[in-house]
Amino acid sequence: MHKSRMEAFSDGVIAIIITIMVLEIKVPHGTSPKELLPLLPVFMSYVLSFVNIAIYWNNHHHMMQAVKHANGKVLWANVHLLFWLSLIPFASGWMGENRFEKYPTIFYGFVLLMAGVAYYFLAKSLIELHGKDSAIGKATKNSKKEIYSVIIYLLGIGLSFIHPYLGFASYVVVACMWFIPDTRMEKTMDDTESSRGES
Amino acid sequence: MHKSRMEAFSDGVIAIIITIMVLEIKVPHGTSPKELLPLLPVFMSYVLSFVNIAIYWNNHHHMMQAVKHANGKVLWANVHLLFWLSLIPFASGWMGENRFEKYPTIFYGFVLLMAGVAYYFLAKSLIELHGKDSAIGKATKNSKKEIYSVIIYLLGIGLSFIHPYLGFASYVVVACMWFIPDTRMEKTMDDTESSRGES
Amino acid sequence: MHKSRMEAFSDGVIAIIITIMVLEIKVPHGTSPKELLPLLPVFMSYVLSFVNIAIYWNNHHHMMQAVKHANGKVLWANVHLLFWLSLIPFASGWMGENRFEKYPTIFYGFVLLMAGVAYYFLAKSLIELHGKDSAIGKATKNSKKEIYSVIIYLLGIGLSFIHPYLGFASYVVVACMWFIPDTRMEKTMDDTESSRGES
Amino acid sequence: MHKSRMEAFSDGVIAIIITIMVLEIKVPHGTSPKELLPLLPVFMSYVLSFVNIAIYWNNHHHMMQAVKHANGKVLWANVHLLFWLSLIPFASGWMGENRFEKYPTIFYGFVLLMAGVAYYFLAKSLIELHGKDSAIGKATKNSKKEIYSVIIYLLGIGLSFIHPYLGFASYVVVACMWFIPDTRMEKTMDDTESSRGES
Repeated sequence: MHKSRMEAFSDGVIAIIITIMVLEIKVPHGTSPKELLPLLPVFMSYVLSFVNIAIYWNNHHHMMQAVKHANGKVLWANVHLLFWLSLIPFASGWMGENRFEKYPTIFYGFVLLMAGVAYYFLAKSLIELHGKDSAIGKATKNSKKEIYSVIIYLLGIGLSFIHPYLGFASYVVVACMWFIPDTRMEKTMDDTESSRGES
Repeated sequence: MHKSRMEAFSDGVIAIIITIMVLEIKVPHGTSPKELLPLLPVFMSYVLSFVNIAIYWNNHHHMMQAVKHANGKVLWANVHLLFWLSLIPFASGWMGENRFEKYPTIFYGFVLLMAGVAYYFLAKSLIELHGKDSAIGKATKNSKKEIYSVIIYLLGIGLSFIHPYLGFASYVVVACMWFIPDTRMEKTMDDTESSRGES
Repeated sequence: MHKSRMEAFSDGVIAIIITIMVLEIKVPHGTSPKELLPLLPVFMSYVLSFVNIAIYWNNHHHMMQAVKHANGKVLWANVHLLFWLSLIPFASGWMGENRFEKYPTIFYGFVLLMAGVAYYFLAKSLIELHGKDSAIGKATKNSKKEIYSVIIYLLGIGLSFIHPYLGFASYVVVACMWFIPDTRMEKTMDDTESSRGES
Repeated sequence: MHKSRMEAFSDGVIAIIITIMVLEIKVPHGTSPKELLPLLPVFMSYVLSFVNIAIYWNNHHHMMQAVKHANGKVLWANVHLLFWLSLIPFASGWMGENRFEKYPTIFYGFVLLMAGVAYYFLAKSLIELHGKDSAIGKATKNSKKEIYSVIIYLLGIGLSFIHPYLGFASYVVVACMWFIPDTRMEKTMDDTESSRGES
């Protein structure tokens, strides 16, 4: 089974998710610059979600380059990831419109956490298919970033009970951590290619 | 006529359908976790529709892999399928907002039924074009799943008149039945490829 | 300049236009089947627009297959076509919500007319680039359908002043006329290919 | 790293941005042609934004053809550009609904300015990767248009404080300036190809 149409479908869904979020920023009725002030939390929520979805697209892109084919399990692991990503516009809208109050912030963290877990499952299903010695297997051998993300998300959800800004800060930390593209993939692929070149 | 642009267009439409459904889950105004409770039926409806559309994408993907080309009839059979799929967000929203009441649940079943029939017509038009001995012809020789789906949908629509939860349960049964990717296609394609390898 | 990315962009825009139209069919608040009755004109308007946009995609697809490359003029002629197509959801919503009253029906016809004209300009710009003896030049030599469409649209707009149903009927006639895929393209391409095969 | 998936993702996002803007043109409740009059500023705002986004797609398309590969920095420069483009529907809606009043017009100019800056950064990151003697390096050697655009946008924002129509006129001037496809790219690529042919 070819991976190309799965990539195309994922690109489509992720492109739509990242774009329809802007519909949550309702056009204000007044014309004074003050009208934009109450939109600030919605806007901050939008920026964080935009960056998070861009990170997922970026990592998905990298992971798929280290991959050769797909099977039924991989397709469904991918749909599962897209499902949690599709809830980000809703979670983002709820958090932004309520100016980062406790439960919306916790719910936003929960959706990010589930997306992180889904991404981890997708990686596992790909390794299962390609073997531990494959490019994808080596690249994700020590999934430190994935595990750290899940821990910080859990921490952020917990800290939101004290103050939601602490939760929000935790989600920003994870986004910053992922902002740098996943060099492991590139590195391992280069290694694989160079060793292939030698033989 | 190449099938690739038909695939790309279908992927685009299906990706948009699966994603705009989330716009039906309206962001609640309150911030308490109780605010999410009334959204539960909307959310359940969303999950079922998300899975159903993912199944259609998955099967469409498989069917197109067993196919070589397209003609005018196939293009219109495909547009017909996309039409019924495009009504799922509306039907899903009506059923979810009304907490699975009788007529919305029946209407949802009707849309799924028509999508099932449209998928069957698309398969027929592809077999007509490629011949019964082609990969697609062999793969869909005994369209048991397609026929069972239509029967269970009809049953579900009937049961909804007694209690809509019975209808909903029927739709879940069909989704579960299709959840497993269509191995017939993969199998027949493998056979075709291996027999080609032998000759 | 390659035509592939122009095709991909057009596919994307057309796929979104055809799908977001469903958002105009607002989910009714009641649960009785009577609630769907007032939606009937909206639904009929949706079906006509869905078919019209599918026809444009279909013809665009055929025309692009007879084409080898693009230039700046072609790109802008294409954007111009997409612009008028992008107004169909708005025109369709206005006509449907007002149950095919006079001016919304005239406006709908006007948008279809402009899309028809834009399609004609796109064809002209492609012929200008490829020459009259090219596949695209021969295929559109006698653009009878395009000219008939524009005439019937103009007639429909005029008839709408008498009764909007006459206008609506005219638009349906054009859609039926185009429903059959444009065999001229396929034929001319086959001719070109066979003559190439002979030499 | 291949550039193709970045192109596909950008195409998807830009196609959605250009299309969902039409959702800002709310269907009027009345049926008289007078109902369309108050929509005129919304419509003019829509046309300007449609043309602007089409220009960005067009130039992005040209720039990517002069480019061979991408890296993490390029991917994020591209996401940054898409972010500012994604705010155009919101800015366009605010400006149109308020009939080109002062602050909405300034805000619209600001978003266009930031998109222009982001485009410039994307070009820089691509030149950094490919070298000054590459096709992309030569093509954007004297980024006159980019610099003029930023200056006219700044001027337009300033003039909007006097009268917003002056700002609007400035944005139209930039759009007209870019309307003509970027021939530099095509020219330099032709030169590169012909010199390659000679060697």
